[in-house]
Amino acid sequence: MNINRMHGAGGQVMQNLIKETILGNLDNTSVNGGIGLNDLDDGATIPLGDKEIVFTVDGHTVSPIFFPGGNIGTLATCGTINDLSVMGAKPLALSLSIILPEGFEIEKLDKIMKSINKSCNEAGVAIITGDTKVSMVEDIIISSAGIGIVDKGKAIRDCGMKEGDKIIVSGNIGEHGMAVLLSREGFEFDTELKSDVAPLNDIIASVLNENIRVNAMKDPTRGGLADSLNEMVEKSGLGIYINEEDLPISDEIVALSDALGIDPLTVANEGKVVMAVHKDDAEKCLEILKKHPLGKNAKIIGEVVSEHKKVVMKTIVGKRIIDTPVGDPIPRVC
Amino acid sequence: MNINRMHGAGGQVMQNLIKETILGNLDNTSVNGGIGLNDLDDGATIPLGDKEIVFTVDGHTVSPIFFPGGNIGTLATCGTINDLSVMGAKPLALSLSIILPEGFEIEKLDKIMKSINKSCNEAGVAIITGDTKVSMVEDIIISSAGIGIVDKGKAIRDCGMKEGDKIIVSGNIGEHGMAVLLSREGFEFDTELKSDVAPLNDIIASVLNENIRVNAMKDPTRGGLADSLNEMVEKSGLGIYINEEDLPISDEIVALSDALGIDPLTVANEGKVVMAVHKDDAEKCLEILKKHPLGKNAKIIGEVVSEHKKVVMKTIVGKRIIDTPVGDPIPRVC
Repeated sequence: MNINRMHGAGGQVMQNLIKETILGNLDNTSVNGGIGLNDLDDGATIPLGDKEIVFTVDGHTVSPIFFPGGNIGTLATCGTINDLSVMGAKPLALSLSIILPEGFEIEKLDKIMKSINKSCNEAGVAIITGDTKVSMVEDIIISSAGIGIVDKGKAIRDCGMKEGDKIIVSGNIGEHGMAVLLSREGFEFDTELKSDVAPLNDIIASVLNENIRVNAMKDPTRGGLADSLNEMVEKSGLGIYINEEDLPISDEIVALSDALGIDPLTVANEGKVVMAVHKDDAEKCLEILKKHPLGKNAKIIGEVVSEHKKVVMKTIVGKRIIDTPVGDPIPRVC
Repeated sequence: MNINRMHGAGGQVMQNLIKETILGNLDNTSVNGGIGLNDLDDGATIPLGDKEIVFTVDGHTVSPIFFPGGNIGTLATCGTINDLSVMGAKPLALSLSIILPEGFEIEKLDKIMKSINKSCNEAGVAIITGDTKVSMVEDIIISSAGIGIVDKGKAIRDCGMKEGDKIIVSGNIGEHGMAVLLSREGFEFDTELKSDVAPLNDIIASVLNENIRVNAMKDPTRGGLADSLNEMVEKSGLGIYINEEDLPISDEIVALSDALGIDPLTVANEGKVVMAVHKDDAEKCLEILKKHPLGKNAKIIGEVVSEHKKVVMKTIVGKRIIDTPVGDPIPRVC
């Protein structure tokens, strides 16, 4: 069997490849009892003294590499910062592995590096190690690994949601994937749509610093909110109800989704976080999020239940099961 | 100006790109006073309590992906383990960022993952986090970042060599690059030549555990021994004399180098370490290295001097300056 696009698109096809061919072949997937590869969380941890080192990596192959709101550099930086942040960690440092095609304009690389620097400054994170190769690739590829720190036992897991928790999304969904799609395909929509790509460490810290009980947290990138919620369900053994009318989504994304026949719940975000928050802390959490520039459109969209083990959306006409997308409807968005 | 192969080949052209376009654009390149990107060492460090986290990354684009003695998986694992090891760190964990072309046979990925597992088991290292993408690449690309631990202040630097130190190489040079070249080009040489790719953490630990004063250490990969020695010279402000007749090199590599017109000093190794060792510890260090399966051909090849700031090789006919190679003579070897 051969690799196809679906194997890299998030969703079920990719998860199967990872479980069978990657995890299936590895004996050692964790260190000192920390969170490991088998946990398929946003990152792993290595316990060290009274801290845990949090470690994560993302490869970025977005097309086009420059899109409204950012570029592959912004994405490489923010993507990794966000994976560390949703583990509850303070991101400290990133590595960059840059693969360049022959003929790539150094001016473009310069522009990408300036964006990386801007995102790093914004997030207070340093690029401390890197590697550059020139190879047979269509366009620049950047893999960024990252290191963060969290107090021992305090990492926030995908699997941690509890019955009764409220599900909160920090803002409007679907903007990254849709912005990349429109700029790639050159659709003639009259739109100012931009990717939401942004570092989430500050907004997440603003919540955690107030001791809000966040029981589970993810950044809904590839596969969108549908994928993240289903992972939280699968790993916790609980179910989620969400209310369609509470979903934060702009009229523009609704209109574009309708026009293109794409479910915005499956579209990648790069500057949003979804949290399962203890019900008694949910209102306070929402208030904190809304005070942050990145959280103005935050919403409580649903709650965690034990009566089923699915993601179920209540719509005006009834209920709909939101499945794990088989693959991202828009490939090469990150 | 556009990227060409030389920008990814190690050597001077790549160093200029890195200094100008990458480092030149970044404000934050170290954390808490640790070793950072500006130090251009084999890895960076983050001080944490009485330890330092050592962090490194390498992108691998070797062609062909399967070669005598290993494959891209072996290389991705050992390359990162070795970068951590030459910093004096104990490697703990790796991340894998895998970029796959559409149509790539899953059987090949399976074989690569099995090799990764084998190298990890050999080195006692775990793969704890990863990412998979499918993109427009000619062949599989693997970026591997790694985390190791060293006691605070004990990281071994490229820049640390001292006057009088002996330069020791752990075994025969030039085997990796030459094996890849032969298997790529299909030359009709009658040879059993294999890549030397291997994890170096155990052989390096065997030296450090005996309190041998290793003042500087590198793994001579892209750009070969010529590149590593020149980096050690440039960063220390001292010079090195090496003796041609003491260089550990097989007759086969000498013959192939002559036939192909390639200087073996510039050819990549993936299982060798070069050390600057305090002169009083050099013989003991050599003895320890020779006891290890990976160090049987270890040799003292020269010494550190203050009379010049070059790498100078004494040959039977006189002296020759060994320059930093402008680019690797064999591209896409790692």
